[in-house]
Amino acid sequence: MDWHQVHDPQDPELDRLAERYRLHPLHIEDCRHRSQSAKVEESLGYLFAVLKTVEVAGDGSLELADLDVFLGRDFVITVEESQQHCARALLDTVLAASTGMRADQIFYRITDGVVDTYLPVLDRFSEIIDELEDQVLDRPTPDTLSRIFETKRSLVLLRRVLVNTRDVAGHLQRTECDLIHRDMWPFLRDVYDHVARNLDLVEMQRDLLTGSLDIYLSSVANRTNQVMKVLTVLGTIALPALVISGIYGMNLKGLPWADSPHATAIVSGVMFVTTIALLAILRLFRWF
Amino acid sequence: MDWHQVHDPQDPELDRLAERYRLHPLHIEDCRHRSQSAKVEESLGYLFAVLKTVEVAGDGSLELADLDVFLGRDFVITVEESQQHCARALLDTVLAASTGMRADQIFYRITDGVVDTYLPVLDRFSEIIDELEDQVLDRPTPDTLSRIFETKRSLVLLRRVLVNTRDVAGHLQRTECDLIHRDMWPFLRDVYDHVARNLDLVEMQRDLLTGSLDIYLSSVANRTNQVMKVLTVLGTIALPALVISGIYGMNLKGLPWADSPHATAIVSGVMFVTTIALLAILRLFRWF
Amino acid sequence: MDWHQVHDPQDPELDRLAERYRLHPLHIEDCRHRSQSAKVEESLGYLFAVLKTVEVAGDGSLELADLDVFLGRDFVITVEESQQHCARALLDTVLAASTGMRADQIFYRITDGVVDTYLPVLDRFSEIIDELEDQVLDRPTPDTLSRIFETKRSLVLLRRVLVNTRDVAGHLQRTECDLIHRDMWPFLRDVYDHVARNLDLVEMQRDLLTGSLDIYLSSVANRTNQVMKVLTVLGTIALPALVISGIYGMNLKGLPWADSPHATAIVSGVMFVTTIALLAILRLFRWF
Amino acid sequence: MDWHQVHDPQDPELDRLAERYRLHPLHIEDCRHRSQSAKVEESLGYLFAVLKTVEVAGDGSLELADLDVFLGRDFVITVEESQQHCARALLDTVLAASTGMRADQIFYRITDGVVDTYLPVLDRFSEIIDELEDQVLDRPTPDTLSRIFETKRSLVLLRRVLVNTRDVAGHLQRTECDLIHRDMWPFLRDVYDHVARNLDLVEMQRDLLTGSLDIYLSSVANRTNQVMKVLTVLGTIALPALVISGIYGMNLKGLPWADSPHATAIVSGVMFVTTIALLAILRLFRWF
Amino acid sequence: MDWHQVHDPQDPELDRLAERYRLHPLHIEDCRHRSQSAKVEESLGYLFAVLKTVEVAGDGSLELADLDVFLGRDFVITVEESQQHCARALLDTVLAASTGMRADQIFYRITDGVVDTYLPVLDRFSEIIDELEDQVLDRPTPDTLSRIFETKRSLVLLRRVLVNTRDVAGHLQRTECDLIHRDMWPFLRDVYDHVARNLDLVEMQRDLLTGSLDIYLSSVANRTNQVMKVLTVLGTIALPALVISGIYGMNLKGLPWADSPHATAIVSGVMFVTTIALLAILRLFRWF
Repeated sequence: MDWHQVHDPQDPELDRLAERYRLHPLHIEDCRHRSQSAKVEESLGYLFAVLKTVEVAGDGSLELADLDVFLGRDFVITVEESQQHCARALLDTVLAASTGMRADQIFYRITDGVVDTYLPVLDRFSEIIDELEDQVLDRPTPDTLSRIFETKRSLVLLRRVLVNTRDVAGHLQRTECDLIHRDMWPFLRDVYDHVARNLDLVEMQRDLLTGSLDIYLSSVANRTNQVMKVLTVLGTIALPALVISGIYGMNLKGLPWADSPHATAIVSGVMFVTTIALLAILRLFRWF
Repeated sequence: MDWHQVHDPQDPELDRLAERYRLHPLHIEDCRHRSQSAKVEESLGYLFAVLKTVEVAGDGSLELADLDVFLGRDFVITVEESQQHCARALLDTVLAASTGMRADQIFYRITDGVVDTYLPVLDRFSEIIDELEDQVLDRPTPDTLSRIFETKRSLVLLRRVLVNTRDVAGHLQRTECDLIHRDMWPFLRDVYDHVARNLDLVEMQRDLLTGSLDIYLSSVANRTNQVMKVLTVLGTIALPALVISGIYGMNLKGLPWADSPHATAIVSGVMFVTTIALLAILRLFRWF
Repeated sequence: MDWHQVHDPQDPELDRLAERYRLHPLHIEDCRHRSQSAKVEESLGYLFAVLKTVEVAGDGSLELADLDVFLGRDFVITVEESQQHCARALLDTVLAASTGMRADQIFYRITDGVVDTYLPVLDRFSEIIDELEDQVLDRPTPDTLSRIFETKRSLVLLRRVLVNTRDVAGHLQRTECDLIHRDMWPFLRDVYDHVARNLDLVEMQRDLLTGSLDIYLSSVANRTNQVMKVLTVLGTIALPALVISGIYGMNLKGLPWADSPHATAIVSGVMFVTTIALLAILRLFRWF
Repeated sequence: MDWHQVHDPQDPELDRLAERYRLHPLHIEDCRHRSQSAKVEESLGYLFAVLKTVEVAGDGSLELADLDVFLGRDFVITVEESQQHCARALLDTVLAASTGMRADQIFYRITDGVVDTYLPVLDRFSEIIDELEDQVLDRPTPDTLSRIFETKRSLVLLRRVLVNTRDVAGHLQRTECDLIHRDMWPFLRDVYDHVARNLDLVEMQRDLLTGSLDIYLSSVANRTNQVMKVLTVLGTIALPALVISGIYGMNLKGLPWADSPHATAIVSGVMFVTTIALLAILRLFRWF
Repeated sequence: MDWHQVHDPQDPELDRLAERYRLHPLHIEDCRHRSQSAKVEESLGYLFAVLKTVEVAGDGSLELADLDVFLGRDFVITVEESQQHCARALLDTVLAASTGMRADQIFYRITDGVVDTYLPVLDRFSEIIDELEDQVLDRPTPDTLSRIFETKRSLVLLRRVLVNTRDVAGHLQRTECDLIHRDMWPFLRDVYDHVARNLDLVEMQRDLLTGSLDIYLSSVANRTNQVMKVLTVLGTIALPALVISGIYGMNLKGLPWADSPHATAIVSGVMFVTTIALLAILRLFRWF
């Protein structure tokens, strides 16, 4: 059993392998053009799979890399399309344990390892969404909006990767080619279950994120409502005083009580009573 | 017929049972890693099911626990993955009535019991949603928002459990393995119907909850609108008085009626008439 | 042909019938537990159907009742789970015309009659939605919101009944048991078409109701916008007068024109011109 | 080949035809009850189709009419359920060209003609939606809302007609009865394609309409935001003047610069500078 | 092998070809009526495909053109329905490389080329959506709304083209007619994958665009909220000064401290303290 690791898809080594194992030109082309979707294709004498490894970069964005695998009866060829850390680590781990393994067992290990890279990413998103929810309810800012948007974008991307990977796992489980021995079936089914469960989680996270955007809008609307009420209450307190003081500020004669020695007390009293009355009315209609 | 109850998945007893009944290593691993999705898998000589029991905790959050069941021709193994109260109560009840039962009958009883734990949870959510609806229409607060969100989150989770459990029940109903006797079929179909009906209910509740968020937003918008109207009416009442008293407060000569002995009455009259006229105009355009 | 009418599911008569016709205990249990979903199940020698009759109560809420029917080769058993008026009327009508009918013909008549109870309910909802739409566009109030919500809730419930009933009708149409003669098939298909069309209508009504909630929100936002404009225009009219009269109200010397005999006229003119200029600017930017 | 045109479903002629061609009583009933959904049913020796012709009335609302067709080996019966103009015109056109045609050819012509009545309706809706979009972005009014709602309602209705008609066309295409000759198949497929494409268009229009409601809401929110800014700017300009003139309007001694001969100039300067400073701050935070 | 290029569907050459190769009149009609959906139809001895080429016009709108292809055993007929640049370029490229090719190889090249025209369009939309997202978060204007709407419209259109093209590719992949040799299957599958991936991208873009509309609404609501806070803070600063100066502006005797020589200082102090106290209260409740 031979395992050929190609670290750079541009490497002419890939062409030599293509010739030796009669790999289809379209598959070699797929290896050399990045950003393929995850997929699996059966060909004469071998099986070609594009897998996607996923990492969260330092700034929270999603980084995808392609890992192409050719599985033949007695060979495995892996092509790394970028030097992503987690793909490298995964291949090293499988390599270390590969002595004496069959080609399909190595293939399963790689697929399983790729699917395992999704879990920490999902956990990271769970944390981010929890944080965003707290922010949204507690103190919504435009920055929260922008982060919700970024996270949504990453989830949309991740979902696409997972849907395709699930289809790959489903296909592998049902495949009738003899490259994969029957005893691997429960394991491949396990991979399928893992991806399906991850996809479930992504759907839940999308649901929660959409919900948090609705909550954002409701929360902002609610705060605006409260600010309006403050303004109304302030207005209610000030208006009687302003109107009454305005009236007594007029250069007119004959204003009521104007000549009374208790004028100030009376007028202040009127101001006070009117304000209280207005506040009482607002209170009655439950406006604060 | 042997029923082995394993109360702790880490118990080495589980390994002994695995050896004795030739249980697949992946299934033992599933027992030991919590938070599995509900599922059923047929294996050589036995059937492995992961069931989820559900409880509502004191603070209204959802608590899930795994209950793993192995069904063989003449044995049942149950593995409780956590010491949840309702799972324990359920197993005790089934145990008390298990004398003389076949393995598949015990299996049915356990499945039926697990499904029965969903109903009180659904009832609790119905109550919560009713409360939330009343709050939303009557007196929406940010706290309402936060509770809507929490409930939504729990329903998303519960829905996932139910979808998986329905698939389990559907699979059991259609299974062609001979571990389950034909006379159990109507009962398994009954379980399926129960779960499907519960799922229907959860969908209805999600629908109502989404609706109540829309209502929240509409309700807040409506209240803001009313607060604005109050502000406008207050402004309408105060402005003529303020403007007119401002004018008569100017240190200028020659203001109309300023020297008249009826100045105060005239000016007050003008203020009053202008205010009424403004209010009448607003009324005409139906702004309050 | 015997038609046994059981008016109360708790009646021991039901147990006697169960024994005589060998009815499955799960079906008897279904009769005694209310709030079943509509369903049909084939059993040994008979067919068991749960049908739902629907009425709109005086306060506009939906009232559901179960009507259970057992159809055998030469017997029909109906179990009314509540004393709902329309179920009673329906059974009386069918009874009056039942002489000489086969069991499956009676069964069809009952099913057809149950489906016929949905139409007046749908008509009632159509009226309510028309009313709500008018209210929403014309004069949205919190009460409108609350009615939209109630109606949505009823439609969600009704939809669930209809979906289940459609499945019942679909099953009856495709059933291969010999309890239903071939000549009843076009009639059962007709029942299916009726329910499917009713379901279409409910979907349309849900669509319209969701739309009317969106319209509500838009309508309130629009009104708030207009109230704001009124406030802005009022402010625009009052501000110049307030500012200028404030300035001339200062106890300072040397205010321009203050000593002129035409001071009042000049100052009023300035107020007037400034106000008009501000209004013209707002007009220019199309704010009212 | 006989073509019987029945212009009024109540016409006893229909009963005579029913007897002569052994039409099923349920079909005759369908002809006499209006507002059927489009459907096709195969019966002994004939095929019964309900087709829907569509017109846009003068006030923009959708007008549906039923056209029932019975297709036998050597007869066609058409029943017009209302005197709609376009149904009449269509039948006249087909009649004029019907000499020498087979029954199934006439049937195809009628079906094709009915489907052709949908295109002008769709074009009319396209125009309406274009108009509404312009209004929504340019000058949203409550009347726009009301028209969006009406159009949505019509599209919901039209979609239902098209979905049913597509099912009819699909059924005709797959039918294995020998009433329709094989050489008509490409033509029936063409009808199916037409309806499917129309349905696509309706879905697109519904999408755009839903979008235009969202835009409406966003547009109104944006305008409210701008009105608020105007109010804020107005307030910013007026407040310093009001506060300062209020202070100098107090009947107190010892106000700074009050006795200076340049008092007015100084105070005006302070007012001006404060106003400019406030506006500069707002500008800094990009509030206008 | 003959390749007939018809540059104008009205060209009588098309009729001559139709006669020679016995093309179905409905297909010729399809060529002559523009704005067909992409489709493929198998006919006696040939295969008819309508393909859609896509370009983005200078003003950002989508321009579609039909390219009709007839594939026979030894002929290819292409009909360009408009003089779109990219369709022309594509045919020239294929022609240049066509020497010695089989008809189905030319057909594949054309189909592949048409699908390749979608990628630059998708890239263009990606850019537009990125821009719109930035605008929406940073500085939402009505113009942004209008561009979101335009882009949505184009995506709705593009999605329809892609869905139909995917169906065409799917059909070609599964077709069992012998016009396409087996060695072309992997290539046709590749075309299918391309279109499916493009469709995925369009769905993602639609998702993001819908999201950006929600963000727009939230963003505007948030800005309105902030403007309201500014207004409230301005009001809070000004009101105490206005009320107190109003009171001391009244022509009344006996106002407290009015005769004190420190009156101005005291009153200013009161104004200042009240303003600070109000601002502190607002701060306490976290309103700014």
